[in-house]
Amino acid sequence: MLTAPSNVYLPRPAASSETRLVSDKFEKYVAENVDEFAKEIIRLASQRSVSARREGIEECAALVEKMLKEIGAQTRILRIEGAPPLVFGEMKSKKSGKTIMFYNHYDVQPEEPLELWKSPPFKPEIRDGAIYGRGVSDDKGELVARLKVVQSYVETQGEPPCNVKFFFEGEEETGSVHLAEYIEKYGDLFKADGVIWEYGTVDTSGTPKVTLGVKGMIYVEFVIRSLSQDAHSSLAAALPSAPWRMVRLLNMLKDANERIMVPGWYDNVSTLSEDELQVLQEMPFDGDGLKKSYGAAGFVGGMTEEQAKKALVQRPTGNIAGIWSGYTGPGSKTVLPKEIHVKMDFRLVPEQDPEDLFKKLRKHLDDNGFADVEIQLESMEPAARTPHSHPFAQAAIAAAAEVYGKKPIVQLGSPGTGPLYLFTRKYGMPSVDIGVSAEDGGIHAPNENLKLENLVKGMLWIAETMEKFSAA
Amino acid sequence: MLTAPSNVYLPRPAASSETRLVSDKFEKYVAENVDEFAKEIIRLASQRSVSARREGIEECAALVEKMLKEIGAQTRILRIEGAPPLVFGEMKSKKSGKTIMFYNHYDVQPEEPLELWKSPPFKPEIRDGAIYGRGVSDDKGELVARLKVVQSYVETQGEPPCNVKFFFEGEEETGSVHLAEYIEKYGDLFKADGVIWEYGTVDTSGTPKVTLGVKGMIYVEFVIRSLSQDAHSSLAAALPSAPWRMVRLLNMLKDANERIMVPGWYDNVSTLSEDELQVLQEMPFDGDGLKKSYGAAGFVGGMTEEQAKKALVQRPTGNIAGIWSGYTGPGSKTVLPKEIHVKMDFRLVPEQDPEDLFKKLRKHLDDNGFADVEIQLESMEPAARTPHSHPFAQAAIAAAAEVYGKKPIVQLGSPGTGPLYLFTRKYGMPSVDIGVSAEDGGIHAPNENLKLENLVKGMLWIAETMEKFSAA
Repeated sequence: MLTAPSNVYLPRPAASSETRLVSDKFEKYVAENVDEFAKEIIRLASQRSVSARREGIEECAALVEKMLKEIGAQTRILRIEGAPPLVFGEMKSKKSGKTIMFYNHYDVQPEEPLELWKSPPFKPEIRDGAIYGRGVSDDKGELVARLKVVQSYVETQGEPPCNVKFFFEGEEETGSVHLAEYIEKYGDLFKADGVIWEYGTVDTSGTPKVTLGVKGMIYVEFVIRSLSQDAHSSLAAALPSAPWRMVRLLNMLKDANERIMVPGWYDNVSTLSEDELQVLQEMPFDGDGLKKSYGAAGFVGGMTEEQAKKALVQRPTGNIAGIWSGYTGPGSKTVLPKEIHVKMDFRLVPEQDPEDLFKKLRKHLDDNGFADVEIQLESMEPAARTPHSHPFAQAAIAAAAEVYGKKPIVQLGSPGTGPLYLFTRKYGMPSVDIGVSAEDGGIHAPNENLKLENLVKGMLWIAETMEKFSAA
Repeated sequence: MLTAPSNVYLPRPAASSETRLVSDKFEKYVAENVDEFAKEIIRLASQRSVSARREGIEECAALVEKMLKEIGAQTRILRIEGAPPLVFGEMKSKKSGKTIMFYNHYDVQPEEPLELWKSPPFKPEIRDGAIYGRGVSDDKGELVARLKVVQSYVETQGEPPCNVKFFFEGEEETGSVHLAEYIEKYGDLFKADGVIWEYGTVDTSGTPKVTLGVKGMIYVEFVIRSLSQDAHSSLAAALPSAPWRMVRLLNMLKDANERIMVPGWYDNVSTLSEDELQVLQEMPFDGDGLKKSYGAAGFVGGMTEEQAKKALVQRPTGNIAGIWSGYTGPGSKTVLPKEIHVKMDFRLVPEQDPEDLFKKLRKHLDDNGFADVEIQLESMEPAARTPHSHPFAQAAIAAAAEVYGKKPIVQLGSPGTGPLYLFTRKYGMPSVDIGVSAEDGGIHAPNENLKLENLVKGMLWIAETMEKFSAA
């Protein structure tokens, strides 16, 4: 799951309902078989698959393929040397020419700290209407829910409402490092008309949230080396200082109004449309709660709550994530440090091209006397965002309103970053985050859980979205 | 010994000699008894006294007092709770109303790494005309040499040429933390007309160096806390950044020309006199060697070699000794750090008052929107410098020229800092660094040594200085 911040959005009041496309028969089948679905989640979550420790990865991939075959899908195990296998599945439908792809991952976070679990993490059990175990929500519960949506269609109507593809990777929790290579190698196999991304959530009041994208990012490390060895600080009267040079560099990167001073940085950045501004305005935002959570006296640059909410969606950032030089222990040591390191992440909005911006950053340094400064590029990802007006986004939003009986929270873009662009940029595919999880599901933590009520509703949400988009 | 940089000064050609005041009898006595003096150094250096480990401190203080008594001095052991004892000695003379104080310390650096010593560090031995052992130079060799100068006067002339005081502390190598308290408590006991400081050196060509003072220092740590906990860096679009705030603060502290921007920082700083400029010009300075040693492309701010030499003596500095915030490990972590720390040392010239400057620094921050920024004061020491024209300085310089047969290197002020001011400020006492050590004597390192030739010459240098100053 993307490590984006949560708990800053408040629930919305219920909205008016519309006409459902999902049949009564389908809905009844899902409701009656929830215990069977839960057993299947427990079956998959009983198989350890901690990617950080390469634990049970092959066994889990084999089990996922088996489960895909059991619902009648065609399967392939795709491989790249040194990477966990990618499990691919496919099922055709004569009902619509459209294709929807499900992206999920079968690896999980490590289970530590063990002593805080009330039941064994890899022997999931049901208590008080919820399944408890590592991965039952992130992302094995979501994965199985999607298999079971398709299976329910096969059982009740012979086939799903559109063609479906399943893309299940095994290293999401360690950064999806081979994802680009898989997409490069297997190309059009993954092409679809829309992607239902990893997960979808309801907040603590039961309001669903539709997220339409993520920011991009350039992550760099600046290194200035002024001396071959640390010097006694009395020599600072004569010898150059790496830390002071870095202060000059940073001061030239961002002005006092938080604006990045690299020429051309904002060239293609558009303002939000009337439609998007409306969505933004409707999005609840607990600014005071956010400030309180982090003990902040105010928003950066004295922004208002409305400005801060907008900035999280649409403002490019230039953040100092780490800085170090010289003596960092207790007390005093008189040293002129030989070097300084600064790590920075620049978040990008959809209109910004990271490769182009990285070149502009380099040129900005070169043009201002910092040609010798090393810039280590750690990672580069463009933003990805599905327009709010896109039929796929509209289908997911309308489906949420019907299934949950209330207007969903629509987030134009998460302030976080993820590899979504690998699908959306290459094939121009829209993407939505919808699913069966809850914000208080304890993902990445002990006692991770999935409520059976959310499982049923989330499956209906996915089904209704598939039908509406297929019919659009 | 002060941890000031060495090896940046080149030897000078010999100068013309002047008339000596030290008698032939005295000189003969010293030359004939050098082996006895060496045995006394070995005797004291055989007693462990590692202040960092509180090892043998009491025993060593007792031995030093015994050795003082053996030359006929009156002694006192001064005590402050929790501090190593201070051994004080005194001997009156009817020959002059003047009093000279010898400052030394009887504690030593730890002996590690043991495996690099060619003979046991605390069983000193003589090889090839030099004594090898921990402390034989820094500072037990210097201490004993001064006792033996006084003893030689007693033996040859009945008494020294002036009153003498001995001030021997036991925690110099751990920062002289109780020195100010001792001076505060025992006040006028230490008053004299001049101080012969800890040590004096000849360089590798045998040229003596007279150092007339040290810079002062304010050492502070700035702390900015913007959040109560680290945040995911996606929130940098809305929440304030401690590192960026520190960049603004630092940028306001020093301008691009290396000038400290705190109003009044340079108020009392005088330019060097004609006399001092002449001394500075005569001081050899290996600028290329210094740059090469540290792999520096040039001097800070593009200074010339002459400017750099002058800056080391007379330029106040503002050095970033340490800076840290956020993630400092390998790879990337997307964090908005909750806080940042910066350690800075500001070196001061004699005209600057650290207490006044610290208040001005605080006000500068307050006046520019940084009133909430914490400034932790680590230490504060004024500079100390004996004017080149002072009779005590002139006596030491003339004595060096006579004893070594060449003009000494005169350093108006070391770029480093030390507690010298505790004596010089309170009593207006002049101070000079003269003694028996050599730049290549391996102080603080394995195989520390003292050449017997330097022992003899250094003792004559001290004696000649005492006589010239007494007669002045």
